[in-house]
Amino acid sequence: MKIARFEGGAGPQIGIVKGDKIVALSELGIKVSDMIELIEAGPPLLAEITENLDHCEAEAGQPLSAVRLLAPLRPRKFLGLGMNYKRHADEARRLGIAVPDNQLWFNKQTSCINDPFGEIEPGVTERLDYEVELGVVIGPSAKSVKAADAHSHIFGYIVVNDVSARDWQFHTTTITMGKSFDTHGPIGPWIVTADEIEDPETLGIRCFVNGEKRQDSNTRDFIHPIAAQIEYLSTAFTLEPGDILATGTPEGVGVAMQPPVFLQPGDIVRCEIDRIGTIENKVARR
Amino acid sequence: MKIARFEGGAGPQIGIVKGDKIVALSELGIKVSDMIELIEAGPPLLAEITENLDHCEAEAGQPLSAVRLLAPLRPRKFLGLGMNYKRHADEARRLGIAVPDNQLWFNKQTSCINDPFGEIEPGVTERLDYEVELGVVIGPSAKSVKAADAHSHIFGYIVVNDVSARDWQFHTTTITMGKSFDTHGPIGPWIVTADEIEDPETLGIRCFVNGEKRQDSNTRDFIHPIAAQIEYLSTAFTLEPGDILATGTPEGVGVAMQPPVFLQPGDIVRCEIDRIGTIENKVARR
Repeated sequence: MKIARFEGGAGPQIGIVKGDKIVALSELGIKVSDMIELIEAGPPLLAEITENLDHCEAEAGQPLSAVRLLAPLRPRKFLGLGMNYKRHADEARRLGIAVPDNQLWFNKQTSCINDPFGEIEPGVTERLDYEVELGVVIGPSAKSVKAADAHSHIFGYIVVNDVSARDWQFHTTTITMGKSFDTHGPIGPWIVTADEIEDPETLGIRCFVNGEKRQDSNTRDFIHPIAAQIEYLSTAFTLEPGDILATGTPEGVGVAMQPPVFLQPGDIVRCEIDRIGTIENKVARR
Repeated sequence: MKIARFEGGAGPQIGIVKGDKIVALSELGIKVSDMIELIEAGPPLLAEITENLDHCEAEAGQPLSAVRLLAPLRPRKFLGLGMNYKRHADEARRLGIAVPDNQLWFNKQTSCINDPFGEIEPGVTERLDYEVELGVVIGPSAKSVKAADAHSHIFGYIVVNDVSARDWQFHTTTITMGKSFDTHGPIGPWIVTADEIEDPETLGIRCFVNGEKRQDSNTRDFIHPIAAQIEYLSTAFTLEPGDILATGTPEGVGVAMQPPVFLQPGDIVRCEIDRIGTIENKVARR
């Protein structure tokens, strides 16, 4: 199931994507106040949605092309994993960046969440860059979860552009400041529930700038698989429903090009992941 | 004004501390659903509270000693500043830790928020440590705010214990994993509104373990003043109402003692800051 948030003229709503249409939960007689509530309600609610979808009238829904898709949610935690693709780690080493043995987690501030087709504001950075990433959306709370059980804590998947301000990123070793400029966290276009993705570690993942392919990899190049990520994080702290794990970006970022190439106002960045979807964000004028 | 969240037998409530009593907002005829809503409502609501407090009956409120104080809020962002006291930076240098020129910001996950008198769970760390810090609670949203205007974006102040798992902290340079174990963010005992603290950079700040004084400094030892912190952060991203900035800890942490001394189950950690208050947390048994 593809679960989206959208603006179709009646304020933000949650809906289900069915072919080229989107059916609002309200049309299905289902009331939830936000996506986190839906995620917390879990499988019984998903079953009810499926049931009601099967029985809803043929004319239910509106064309996807007629609505504006919104960020599916603002999570409580938005964590990013650095250097999790083997070939991206090689690229980083060439730049003189040490690749640690441990998983390299950092935060994106949740205030940076942006719509799947929203504009990216460059802000004060002179070195604006893209990073396509597979986002894992946590379902049931996870604390001290072993890798073998980790997949039962995944609600679904999403495309993330971990937009990065490379100058501010390297102000300190924590990289906090360059990962969270406002609008630098486009996510979407919807959440694909976990049951639709049998193996999330075999997905093609690509990023294009103005139509030029810059990143082209597959999640099978992961250094730390998703199950290991959930085990490691949840050994320290609780992952909560709706938390997003951005699982790292593959090789091909602008800062690693020779010479480096950064995003400019007017550029169009498209991020796509097989079986999940595509988000596309234009870099705003300053 | 001291604004607290408390459990007095009728579920969590927000109240105002008046001498040795706490008066619930509901007793004052004021309805707010949570602390962030109160902070967003800002000065007009604070004026109404003050007015109603002045006119409420003498028997209003209940003894502070009869209620359990709770964490005043769970913020959207909980940011910590590393090495912001001159003598703590010296201590870090002795441990071989580089002190950057830039402000060293990291995140505490908001899921680590704990009550001012809640127990600290050690979890899997073998190197549990304390860090008393002055917490700044953001009021009106701050984006691209200059230092000269920064203080108008402060709602109030709070005591923070930036509890740290030193082994997990140094897994990677981002320090993310060691700063956010569940329960490792005790805050409180209440928010003191900014009007009561004329100069937040002249406050005595202390931490005791089992009554032994371990940290004893003054916020005038800050390297980066609060106004500079707000300017720097808000140049990159928006600070939102209720966001907490933990402004760094002074010298005297356990990991810097020779030899290092870590917190053990049963230890009592007391953090106090002049004119703000005291929080006290016991380390739980494993």
